[in-house]
Amino acid sequence: MSQNQLDARRNEILTGARTCFARYGYEGATVRRLEEEIGLSRGAIFHHFRDKDSLFLAVAEDDAATMVATVAEHGLVQVMRDLLHAASASASDTGEPDVTGWLGSQLEVSRRLRTDPEFAKRWAARSEAVAEATRERLQRQLEAGVLRADVPIGILAQFLELAYDGLVLHLATGRPVQDLEAVLNLVEGAVRRK
Amino acid sequence: MSQNQLDARRNEILTGARTCFARYGYEGATVRRLEEEIGLSRGAIFHHFRDKDSLFLAVAEDDAATMVATVAEHGLVQVMRDLLHAASASASDTGEPDVTGWLGSQLEVSRRLRTDPEFAKRWAARSEAVAEATRERLQRQLEAGVLRADVPIGILAQFLELAYDGLVLHLATGRPVQDLEAVLNLVEGAVRRK
Repeated sequence: MSQNQLDARRNEILTGARTCFARYGYEGATVRRLEEEIGLSRGAIFHHFRDKDSLFLAVAEDDAATMVATVAEHGLVQVMRDLLHAASASASDTGEPDVTGWLGSQLEVSRRLRTDPEFAKRWAARSEAVAEATRERLQRQLEAGVLRADVPIGILAQFLELAYDGLVLHLATGRPVQDLEAVLNLVEGAVRRK
Repeated sequence: MSQNQLDARRNEILTGARTCFARYGYEGATVRRLEEEIGLSRGAIFHHFRDKDSLFLAVAEDDAATMVATVAEHGLVQVMRDLLHAASASASDTGEPDVTGWLGSQLEVSRRLRTDPEFAKRWAARSEAVAEATRERLQRQLEAGVLRADVPIGILAQFLELAYDGLVLHLATGRPVQDLEAVLNLVEGAVRRK
């Protein structure tokens, strides 16, 4: 296989794996279900990825790269607004991609993080990329004069990350979304210059 | 047994069960471990509580009652500060009660909430009690003139709950605590009158 073919095959595997993890969660995405969703045998899949963990982390890295791009351009609050919109759409069954499974897999990750130090280490690089993009974006907003200047950027970034974590936990446990847009406005207001 | 003896026995069971759930998490607290920690046979334990779920929910109800009392007197931000303090103490091994297991069990609950509608229903009453105490406390603060008046109390309460959820997820996954006090100051500042 040429490099192009290898890359195409790798992307094909990642796309199927993403759907499978979103639908069944990490635990529920058995190797058999991964085979069915991806349309390849376990031998073919694990020729490209060492094991299910590596496959899951590769999907998570793609997610993180997308999140970093959105944070860099529109900020972490916009990531939260997009997530809220997607969760509302899932709840009202509009045919948009369902994020319920994705949210569930985020909670499963949380569980892994506290029980599996090796997994936690591999995950940390992904979180740090998002945190760095958040700080850089805040720095640019500070220079543009729209950010409050009385609190260090590192604290503002962690405040936004805390709100993001809270939103994930709230949505993943299926609680009501109705007032969350107003709550996110409050989050955004708390880091802006008055 | 007299009513007093029944109550004493019930409290004895709850105390042992709390320790066991905190140490092993919900899943890890097997009936055998519950027997060992409580010092009673499964027959004696489940004479007072229908099953492990009921026992766990009874412990959670006690936790919620404690939380409601703290919220009513000092507010939800103080609950967060206490949690942060306990998590820092656990991390630095000062001999204070370890909240790591308790945090882990909160995440396990989150998982149950999305997969088990019956459990979610029984849990909801507990969350609503905390939410109501939060709104009542904010109402008193508004009347005392220390709260911002431009955002409805329901939104301020949900903002604080979002921060609380974020803190639980942050601490439960063992992430660093160092800057969180400053982050909580920011959370508190966001609901106060300027």
